[in-house]
Amino acid sequence: MGKVYKTITLVGTSTKGYEDAINSAIEEAAKTLKGMAWFEVKEMRGGIKDNKVAEYQAIITVGFLLISE
Amino acid sequence: MGKVYKTITLVGTSTKGYEDAINSAIEEAAKTLKGMAWFEVKEMRGGIKDNKVAEYQAIITVGFLLISE
Amino acid sequence: MGKVYKTITLVGTSTKGYEDAINSAIEEAAKTLKGMAWFEVKEMRGGIKDNKVAEYQAIITVGFLLISE
Amino acid sequence: MGKVYKTITLVGTSTKGYEDAINSAIEEAAKTLKGMAWFEVKEMRGGIKDNKVAEYQAIITVGFLLISE
Amino acid sequence: MGKVYKTITLVGTSTKGYEDAINSAIEEAAKTLKGMAWFEVKEMRGGIKDNKVAEYQAIITVGFLLISE
Amino acid sequence: MGKVYKTITLVGTSTKGYEDAINSAIEEAAKTLKGMAWFEVKEMRGGIKDNKVAEYQAIITVGFLLISE
Amino acid sequence: MGKVYKTITLVGTSTKGYEDAINSAIEEAAKTLKGMAWFEVKEMRGGIKDNKVAEYQAIITVGFLLISE
Amino acid sequence: MGKVYKTITLVGTSTKGYEDAINSAIEEAAKTLKGMAWFEVKEMRGGIKDNKVAEYQAIITVGFLLISE
Amino acid sequence: MGKVYKTITLVGTSTKGYEDAINSAIEEAAKTLKGMAWFEVKEMRGGIKDNKVAEYQAIITVGFLLISE
Amino acid sequence: MGKVYKTITLVGTSTKGYEDAINSAIEEAAKTLKGMAWFEVKEMRGGIKDNKVAEYQAIITVGFLLISE
Amino acid sequence: MGKVYKTITLVGTSTKGYEDAINSAIEEAAKTLKGMAWFEVKEMRGGIKDNKVAEYQAIITVGFLLISE
Amino acid sequence: MGKVYKTITLVGTSTKGYEDAINSAIEEAAKTLKGMAWFEVKEMRGGIKDNKVAEYQAIITVGFLLISE
Repeated sequence: MGKVYKTITLVGTSTKGYEDAINSAIEEAAKTLKGMAWFEVKEMRGGIKDNKVAEYQAIITVGFLLISE
Repeated sequence: MGKVYKTITLVGTSTKGYEDAINSAIEEAAKTLKGMAWFEVKEMRGGIKDNKVAEYQAIITVGFLLISE
Repeated sequence: MGKVYKTITLVGTSTKGYEDAINSAIEEAAKTLKGMAWFEVKEMRGGIKDNKVAEYQAIITVGFLLISE
Repeated sequence: MGKVYKTITLVGTSTKGYEDAINSAIEEAAKTLKGMAWFEVKEMRGGIKDNKVAEYQAIITVGFLLISE
Repeated sequence: MGKVYKTITLVGTSTKGYEDAINSAIEEAAKTLKGMAWFEVKEMRGGIKDNKVAEYQAIITVGFLLISE
Repeated sequence: MGKVYKTITLVGTSTKGYEDAINSAIEEAAKTLKGMAWFEVKEMRGGIKDNKVAEYQAIITVGFLLISE
Repeated sequence: MGKVYKTITLVGTSTKGYEDAINSAIEEAAKTLKGMAWFEVKEMRGGIKDNKVAEYQAIITVGFLLISE
Repeated sequence: MGKVYKTITLVGTSTKGYEDAINSAIEEAAKTLKGMAWFEVKEMRGGIKDNKVAEYQAIITVGFLLISE
Repeated sequence: MGKVYKTITLVGTSTKGYEDAINSAIEEAAKTLKGMAWFEVKEMRGGIKDNKVAEYQAIITVGFLLISE
Repeated sequence: MGKVYKTITLVGTSTKGYEDAINSAIEEAAKTLKGMAWFEVKEMRGGIKDNKVAEYQAIITVGFLLISE
Repeated sequence: MGKVYKTITLVGTSTKGYEDAINSAIEEAAKTLKGMAWFEVKEMRGGIKDNKVAEYQAIITVGFLLISE
Repeated sequence: MGKVYKTITLVGTSTKGYEDAINSAIEEAAKTLKGMAWFEVKEMRGGIKDNKVAEYQAIITVGFLLISE
């Protein structure tokens, strides 16, 4: 049987930019997931406060290998 | 590090309508999830029996805060 | 309350073809999931090595009944 | 040979709401079709008159079993 | 019950242009349909022969009122 | 010269449902716009608080006739 | 006037695979249609029973020449 | 700070064709806007009366330079 | 009646990057708008001159609260 | 082995209209390509100068037979 | 500088099925390209003759490493 | 005859971010292409290694003027 991967969808946030928002999401996911192999950016949004960007939000899917015992 | 959210995809069903189908899905998710913050309707479908709508089906994504200990 | 389903996204791989890649993903998911009812093919990709298809990759969503106790 | 279904596209209208617009379409289709099994909502639009919603319009596809004699 | 419309999909062709291709499709449909109310252009394609456009193809959906007796 | 319409994008919100959210948006738009003729639902989202739908959000475009003096 | 084609949407099913599901749909359509010229695969889905693919479902559109007498 | 543009969405109509419908929309917009730089066709629709195209409708977005004083 | 928001579409440009292009657009919008709450990135493009990126262009929608007096 | 085609993406421009823009692109491509068989319109845009359409732009893909020696 | 890949779009055809159509396209491309690494299926279509599938057509993009000397 | 442009699709990669990945792709393309005028970001992906982003990947199309002699 071929390898099987699962993808989950995360929303990373950052006050600095989209790369940092992506890293936040992956860093958080790393606490419970092993074998992450790739990600895809699905949406880029953000929050505005006092007429300025308050938060960048990157909606990403992360793919990781399913390892059954 | 910025806050990180996860989204999952649910299909709520109802004999009454789409708002009720959405509520079913969120009520069920509430049994195991905390920190749900928003949802998005991705698809609206339904089943037909005896020439009548038998079931409304709302495919939604639900976003919730990831809280790592 | 109406029935509620959840969908997850899997990537099945195979050296034979897309139907086999789909079966790999569902077979793997069956190790931890019960009540799988349907799937949808979202993307079809593949890897190439030495000028030949080395792997078919089927990205699918799988829907299953949520059963709360 | 496996079962074969056909889908047609209908636009149901209602002054009450989208569920009612969907029911209108299916009720009308039931006059000439048998074996309707599911529907999908493709678009939701509406007409406005005198600054108020005058009509909800649900564009749906309806699937039904093809029965050849 | 609100009015119900049906839409069908046609491909009109023309050597002159897309408006003419659309008119071809509607003219042909008019032989069997009554109550056509609107159309939407879904795709625009064409055939090439001898390095020149040989045919414009307009894929359109046409909506018409369903009148049950 | 043919008639010209403009469309704007609004987000109506409601604690009751999507039809009510749409009506909120159109009622608000009516304070400054004349000649609204149609709307299209582009997205349906919502907010969740305390494990329940707190708000339905309908993102719609509204079309109205441009009348130049 | 240029040639005019119509397209219809069918769902073919098979326990073997997608090519077989497509053939089922076209074979069934051939009982009432003449002049079929092309098809397009729009969606690929399937049913799952007992943790295995029970049915492949190919949603296709089929184009055929409209011949008016 | 880099230049900033705004885009608005217009629906131009014409009995002649899509290019004319686009021109109608831009001509009307020119009465109140300066600095229009580009447009994009988003949708092409039309009205049918007496089995003939009664009106071509081009939904376009128009981009123009925002000039703050 | 629930709160109502409006969204507009802006194109911010920058020689530095997309975050800067987004900020340009929001900074410019802030000169005439109050109550901006969120943005969404719809497209990312750019201009090239002398074989180098000359300008990053971020097409965004900005949502703000409609406040009627 | 079955026939193999390649598609390339071109942007034709014209001051007259979209059919003319398409023809420009195909005429230019004909200088270096043989065996062009079909095209598809992917986007329609345009430039505006002095409040008038200055240029129609048709983004098309063109398919041609790959002939290996 | 990071690695750079190029993708091209091919249409493979086969009388047997989609996997075979994909292989045809890649086999043909291999005559002039080196370093092919992945492919993505973009569309699946086919030709019909005498009420049967006459040809499967797989529209794929193929990615390969750009190697500059 | 109007100007004609061609677009090609490239995947730029970088360990730093998306702007850098875009620049890599354009820098590489500049070795063989003249007259590049614009680019569009189509997809943003990335590779993950050891629970960290190992590579940003920007899939872009690049448009350049076709100059026939």
